[in-house]
Amino acid sequence: MTLILSNEDVEKVLTMPDCMEVLEDAYVELSEGRGLNRVRSDCLAPSGQAEALYSLKSMDGVIPKLGVGAVRIDSDIVTWPKLGNTMRRVKVPAAPNRRYVGLVLLFSSANGEPLAILPDGVLQRMRVGAANGLAIKYLARKDARAVGILGSGWQAGAQLMAACAARGIEQIRCFSPNPEHCKAFASDMTTALGVEIEPVAQPEDAIAGADIVICASNSIDNIFFERWIEPGVHLSSIKLPEIETAAMRRADRLVIHTHDASPIHVVAKDIAVPEKGRNKGWDLGAGLDFRKTPTLPDVITGRAPGRQSEQEVTCFINNLGMGYQFAAAGAVVYRKAKEAGLGHHLPTDWFTQDVHP
Amino acid sequence: MTLILSNEDVEKVLTMPDCMEVLEDAYVELSEGRGLNRVRSDCLAPSGQAEALYSLKSMDGVIPKLGVGAVRIDSDIVTWPKLGNTMRRVKVPAAPNRRYVGLVLLFSSANGEPLAILPDGVLQRMRVGAANGLAIKYLARKDARAVGILGSGWQAGAQLMAACAARGIEQIRCFSPNPEHCKAFASDMTTALGVEIEPVAQPEDAIAGADIVICASNSIDNIFFERWIEPGVHLSSIKLPEIETAAMRRADRLVIHTHDASPIHVVAKDIAVPEKGRNKGWDLGAGLDFRKTPTLPDVITGRAPGRQSEQEVTCFINNLGMGYQFAAAGAVVYRKAKEAGLGHHLPTDWFTQDVHP
Repeated sequence: MTLILSNEDVEKVLTMPDCMEVLEDAYVELSEGRGLNRVRSDCLAPSGQAEALYSLKSMDGVIPKLGVGAVRIDSDIVTWPKLGNTMRRVKVPAAPNRRYVGLVLLFSSANGEPLAILPDGVLQRMRVGAANGLAIKYLARKDARAVGILGSGWQAGAQLMAACAARGIEQIRCFSPNPEHCKAFASDMTTALGVEIEPVAQPEDAIAGADIVICASNSIDNIFFERWIEPGVHLSSIKLPEIETAAMRRADRLVIHTHDASPIHVVAKDIAVPEKGRNKGWDLGAGLDFRKTPTLPDVITGRAPGRQSEQEVTCFINNLGMGYQFAAAGAVVYRKAKEAGLGHHLPTDWFTQDVHP
Repeated sequence: MTLILSNEDVEKVLTMPDCMEVLEDAYVELSEGRGLNRVRSDCLAPSGQAEALYSLKSMDGVIPKLGVGAVRIDSDIVTWPKLGNTMRRVKVPAAPNRRYVGLVLLFSSANGEPLAILPDGVLQRMRVGAANGLAIKYLARKDARAVGILGSGWQAGAQLMAACAARGIEQIRCFSPNPEHCKAFASDMTTALGVEIEPVAQPEDAIAGADIVICASNSIDNIFFERWIEPGVHLSSIKLPEIETAAMRRADRLVIHTHDASPIHVVAKDIAVPEKGRNKGWDLGAGLDFRKTPTLPDVITGRAPGRQSEQEVTCFINNLGMGYQFAAAGAVVYRKAKEAGLGHHLPTDWFTQDVHP
């Protein structure tokens, strides 16, 4: 049978510690050349609606050790509204019933069969959280207790789950440009994590005295600046533009997620993609060359050093996601969902064929 | 509802003339920069079985004019056995019930929704056939009547359907290294096409006097040689190595399928991929540079000339498939399958989500 799972199914079975554990092992496989990642590709075309584009994104990964391959696909209607001075990439829930479209297809690398089809939403935040959580494990001070987080959205929640899984976090301060949302987020996550989260009015209030500063926004402009750095802090970012380049340069240890960092862009003629909406790849300027920057798998396998002293400033940039992460987290979800009897069970024959394609 | 279609459903609704018509239009869109193709990627990893590899292949395309995006995925167990002196890439039906795994996911580019999920087998041969059929339409002599075909497999059938759709074919001779298979193929296709197909004992017997020579094998070695060329012939190939490089050089008009011809290869460490199993990309040697060779879309839009005289030798190499073709053919299949009420209808909510991924 091929399983059709929902985000609710994924939430039931995938814990952050499980997700971090499987990813940690998977990153070793990747670093050793036994696991495979195919870099993300984005096709951008007119959607037929003004100011909105159609984006078809895909990325693949294979982990022979776990016996899986995965393809993650996003089929999005995308806009770039401005919120204050900050430009944001916003997906529009344009599918029937006002829904988003993101899927993970999980295959067996032992016999090719389609094991499961599931939405990518929960997996997406869990694997981003787990990657930044592993960076905290390897880079933040062992005694880190205080977190300052910029952002109060869907990703921010997983970032806090991961920080709490990696360190004994006792204090969290949260800033978001939307105070209402920030308050609700703080209240919900306080309940979920059992750690008091304080909403604050300015980013500086969240950051001052934090051992770990987490950027978890959907901004495509800088939201953390060099002048805010304190000795011994660990900086964590879920996407490239959040942390000012000068702040990255200032870090004693700068680590990125992956060298597979130049997505394939296929863009239709005569459509306007906001310049800042394009991924910059390696071109950071200011002498920063990500090709020479160690990756999280390098640090996990010991090829690159982690934190060397209490005073060091460490910085992890989750510069680009990997299809590979969906294979890792998907493998856990599939195993546990199957054990728990979750999801719709469809005949595998519906998704296979008797002709040599 | 999201449609789950079978190869039988696709066969019911997709005719070769329909497939050629939609592709002809789609190639114009592509050539004008309005349609998008994301080049194929192949991940190759151990399958856990000796002499067999796991291959996860994907390719994407978007055609705003038709309102669709498509992702085609193959999740294969692959071997490279030798048949005589010829090495072949052979997929093993390792999935449950001895089946192959190839899927096309079709999305709406207007609202992102998943329209259909279907196997790629029938679409795959139809779109290959249609591409080579369009090349016959634009390059073969208008009065072409005799076809010689090398190969009697799954692809060969679609090639003959396409040749018959493009020209008034009256005579077909077929050679295959497997005489039994060749006989059965000739008999079946004679019935299907209403044109007498004669199985012959040697490749030269199929080729002599043919107006159109079709190579439709799964060989990764040359099967057609320069010495066999006759004036005025149109040569057609479904993959790069079939036609000897010297024969391509000899052609007055050489046309390829696409300049997106360097698949992304991600290969696990320490696995043996037969050298000839790797796609060569541009590196043909002997002064042939495919980057400067016109493509089928160039010929269809008139950017590159088609046949200029009765005596010219023309040659079309379907050097690499495109995800884009699955979007085009898939759009027709979806529309007609929906009209005909075919397939399993699943709630679209199963393949969408209410969280911003």
